[in-house]
Amino acid sequence: MKIFKIAAPDESIRQALIDKINNLTKPKGSLGRLEELALQIGLIQQTLSPELKQPQNILFAGDHGIVDEGVSFSPKEITWQQISNFLHGGAGINFLCRQHGFVLKIVDAGVDYDFPKDKGIIDMKIRKGTRNYLYEAAMTTEEMDLCIERGAEVVRRSHEEGCNVVSFGEMGIANTSSSSMWMSCFTGIPLDECVGAGSGLDSAGICHKYNVLKKALENYNGDRSAEDIISYFGGLEMVMAVGGMLQAAELKMTILVDGFIMTNCILAASKLYPNVLDYAIFGHQGDETGHKLLLDAMEVKPLLNLGLRLGEGSGAICAYPIVDSAVRMINEMDNFAHAAVTKYF
Amino acid sequence: MKIFKIAAPDESIRQALIDKINNLTKPKGSLGRLEELALQIGLIQQTLSPELKQPQNILFAGDHGIVDEGVSFSPKEITWQQISNFLHGGAGINFLCRQHGFVLKIVDAGVDYDFPKDKGIIDMKIRKGTRNYLYEAAMTTEEMDLCIERGAEVVRRSHEEGCNVVSFGEMGIANTSSSSMWMSCFTGIPLDECVGAGSGLDSAGICHKYNVLKKALENYNGDRSAEDIISYFGGLEMVMAVGGMLQAAELKMTILVDGFIMTNCILAASKLYPNVLDYAIFGHQGDETGHKLLLDAMEVKPLLNLGLRLGEGSGAICAYPIVDSAVRMINEMDNFAHAAVTKYF
Repeated sequence: MKIFKIAAPDESIRQALIDKINNLTKPKGSLGRLEELALQIGLIQQTLSPELKQPQNILFAGDHGIVDEGVSFSPKEITWQQISNFLHGGAGINFLCRQHGFVLKIVDAGVDYDFPKDKGIIDMKIRKGTRNYLYEAAMTTEEMDLCIERGAEVVRRSHEEGCNVVSFGEMGIANTSSSSMWMSCFTGIPLDECVGAGSGLDSAGICHKYNVLKKALENYNGDRSAEDIISYFGGLEMVMAVGGMLQAAELKMTILVDGFIMTNCILAASKLYPNVLDYAIFGHQGDETGHKLLLDAMEVKPLLNLGLRLGEGSGAICAYPIVDSAVRMINEMDNFAHAAVTKYF
Repeated sequence: MKIFKIAAPDESIRQALIDKINNLTKPKGSLGRLEELALQIGLIQQTLSPELKQPQNILFAGDHGIVDEGVSFSPKEITWQQISNFLHGGAGINFLCRQHGFVLKIVDAGVDYDFPKDKGIIDMKIRKGTRNYLYEAAMTTEEMDLCIERGAEVVRRSHEEGCNVVSFGEMGIANTSSSSMWMSCFTGIPLDECVGAGSGLDSAGICHKYNVLKKALENYNGDRSAEDIISYFGGLEMVMAVGGMLQAAELKMTILVDGFIMTNCILAASKLYPNVLDYAIFGHQGDETGHKLLLDAMEVKPLLNLGLRLGEGSGAICAYPIVDSAVRMINEMDNFAHAAVTKYF
């Protein structure tokens, strides 16, 4: 697998950042999480005047062999149909990207469909969907490595374009199943607490999904290394997002983490390189069962909780204005000395 | 007191709004609170294609006689000093207004300071701060009526300028004290649960503040009508905000409610005209003790919880992009039939 150099940000600038934030014209701490974000981004960028440049939302898409077992409410063809909808600009992620000035990149990591070549989709297809992990590994080690490399390549290109803040999204029917498998394997939280409704299962559907996934876990006889869990249960779009996140951290970009699936991707990334988490901002706590448990287990607190369960990067992008506010705060607010306001805190 | 005509929005358009939202290309309900907001704003504006026009943040400022009792960590002169800072563009509310395209209006409702006339402040001064309600009513009935009228006048002007969404903010040292009094009187929640740290009191300071307010409540011997509670314990800036909110609802504008103080203002407004709440979106749950209790008592759930306790309208404006997203969603997203995506929910 590709090697990344991901170090924790140099801490020597921390006190200067804290001093700058505390001297802005407001009661100390009164801008709450904006102050935390300004500190984090200042550390990532190693400057007292951080900037957010050319935000991009990279949306990886792929299909899942496990869908054959009836674990998803939505049929598999929704994956390619929604990708087409993204390309036409009519989906949820489109208006959010337009609103917040994000470039939207759609990456075919492994959709079971032949897209026309001229539609602007980035072709990184590994294969037409994963294998069915009820019976065998979803992908080979070579396919996993290729996903990591190609995800990293997409992010390198974004960085070359001037982007320093990147959100990751996904589209892939049945990928909440893969995510639940990763979550249970990586955190030790019992599988039944990791499985939820996905795009709309009822109780009977969730029960069936759980039984399938439980059987898959029983059938699994790999070495339980991070790499093996990633390749055995992962989706091509998910592993490509892992590669993208690792590359973003190496390049000292700020990573915006979306909902349940992307949280599992950065969890998996952190099992390979723990410091990737220093570069991550968690955008949204979704309603999918398990997401709150997972966030609690990771000891992170997302910025928003709006009941979104769309995926696509939507929760991360809704949170972006708050991240932007934090950066504007540290750059645009006056300090007590200059503003001639009695310092009150 | 000025009479307002504030009716609940006509419900006959509700089903058409729900149908439109449910047919957008997403799993039903998957955009969570954006869907609720789109419905609410569609009802307020009585259209399937609502628009947000020329948002404004109206910030009312005033001083409080109760400050003489040492209930605030910050000295009284912070009120006028911060107003000067707002006018120079260096405060928290300034960068947030710039970020989200809000016009910022600063209204002197009753600051104990003579501002220069040429600085752009809207002069609605009633008097130089309220009286000390430990011993007497903060304002007379006539002064209250004038506050309501002048607050309404400011909002009418905004409406004439083309604004249909308005946030209210405040600046007034000691106004968490007045807010706690309103909260306890209007909700019946015991005073000690309504009193908090304000701009930075420690435990001893909070204890002293509570004892002063408890004594003020014991000394009060008014008729406990909404009008009497509003005038006895209110701030000039707070009552002016009440007038502004009532006028906004009459004009079918969308009202963005900020933190603890503005939540108490719309609570007070609702005691005069209950339907004002149909026009209100709650932006932020702050850390001030009592705010969560108050929101729970009102059975409302703010969009954000970012640990802000700055006031000025900051929490409401941070929430604005989410409100904007809701309106973009209902206007810009494609529907299933047009997008040729299999309807999945």
